[in-house]
Amino acid sequence: MMINNINNAEVNLKENERIDDLQCNGFRIIQNPSHFCFGTDAVLLANFAGGKKTAKAIDLGTGTGIIPILMLAKGKAKEFTALEIQENMVEMARRSAALNGISDRLNVVHGDIKEVRNLFKHDSFDIVTSNPPYIVDDGGYHNPTESVNIARHEILVKLEDVISAASFLLKGNGKFAMVHKPFRLGEIIRLMQRYNIEPKRMQLVQPNEKGEANMVLIEGIKSGKSGMKILRTINVYNMDGSHIDYNEL
Amino acid sequence: MMINNINNAEVNLKENERIDDLQCNGFRIIQNPSHFCFGTDAVLLANFAGGKKTAKAIDLGTGTGIIPILMLAKGKAKEFTALEIQENMVEMARRSAALNGISDRLNVVHGDIKEVRNLFKHDSFDIVTSNPPYIVDDGGYHNPTESVNIARHEILVKLEDVISAASFLLKGNGKFAMVHKPFRLGEIIRLMQRYNIEPKRMQLVQPNEKGEANMVLIEGIKSGKSGMKILRTINVYNMDGSHIDYNEL
Repeated sequence: MMINNINNAEVNLKENERIDDLQCNGFRIIQNPSHFCFGTDAVLLANFAGGKKTAKAIDLGTGTGIIPILMLAKGKAKEFTALEIQENMVEMARRSAALNGISDRLNVVHGDIKEVRNLFKHDSFDIVTSNPPYIVDDGGYHNPTESVNIARHEILVKLEDVISAASFLLKGNGKFAMVHKPFRLGEIIRLMQRYNIEPKRMQLVQPNEKGEANMVLIEGIKSGKSGMKILRTINVYNMDGSHIDYNEL
Repeated sequence: MMINNINNAEVNLKENERIDDLQCNGFRIIQNPSHFCFGTDAVLLANFAGGKKTAKAIDLGTGTGIIPILMLAKGKAKEFTALEIQENMVEMARRSAALNGISDRLNVVHGDIKEVRNLFKHDSFDIVTSNPPYIVDDGGYHNPTESVNIARHEILVKLEDVISAASFLLKGNGKFAMVHKPFRLGEIIRLMQRYNIEPKRMQLVQPNEKGEANMVLIEGIKSGKSGMKILRTINVYNMDGSHIDYNEL
């Protein structure tokens, strides 16, 4: 459901922007459909990621801020830092924080994932989340909108940068949760282990029960012991064409 | 369907042994229900593993010989070596080969997976399969039948021994296919990569669509490039309680 709050006194909307209801405890988000809008992957990651009310969390490459906003709405963190390199997205995510009245708990930081060592203290977060760009940048097809390219292709940040940053930021036994493409699962597990994050939980996402997985949700624990739990595979659509209810996951 | 061929002139059956029809091109197998009988895992692995009519293959820890017999029945190999440490199983698997008239294509070898370097030439197989013991031997519950313990617990062979042996035996670009427990997926992928077998295909097996995976099928390629394909999750039972048809996988 989409609500155009252009007369809302609390926040200003810019041209082409809209406010979407997140169907979760009244939380809303500002998006610009001509730039990058969040997808099923972000919603599934916010559902999948472990959290607790007292957690200090950070989202790497937050975009609109969708993952921190959903996780705060679900009571999965006490406070979230949301790191984003694109200045227009930072500014929009800050207005979404204000819209939800959580500016004191959601700190949107303008910066580069590759620079986390200069921006934050090491071993200082309980939870790190990320919905990073999926596609190896091979110079192939690019979307004409540069902000979409940056969100989808590994132009500014690569998988190893994200995992290395997560390892730096996490406390011992802290959790790193990510959504990515199944094609890269071997590489994901290798890099997590290289940076001392042991894969502990995984869940595949298929379009429906006859389709192959097109997303993988994975969570690791810094300095964790070996041993994985694989949750039941999610089918986004039932065979009758109806969409799953995220609240039933 | 079970056929008691105790009057069959071709092979002798010992006490408690029976002949089972494999529902695949008329192939049959001898089993002893008071020892170890093959399970869904072996049938699924024989379905999952890649093969070709010209392939030279080896199965590590073959037990009754179920995986080689099914893969030969499906035309997935030209010839199979079947390595087994338990002498009574070796002898029984040889009689199953004779029963199916494939003794010239199925060479059952009595030996230890840890000794493959003394038994076979390196880089000499196109395909290696294994349905190894799943359970870390922690001194916990053991079945009173020792042959069942050896098949289920890592008493005589550990995961790393199996993967190391597979890497030794495989030609470059040869395929290693294994079935194991999801709990150990992180360790499996780490060891495969350590021994230069890159994970390329994976499939989860759930009891049904509401249940968590209790098996993982995984195939890697020796000296392969990074990049995985994840097949659709198998539900062994449909929600109406009916069993899947293996021929439809």
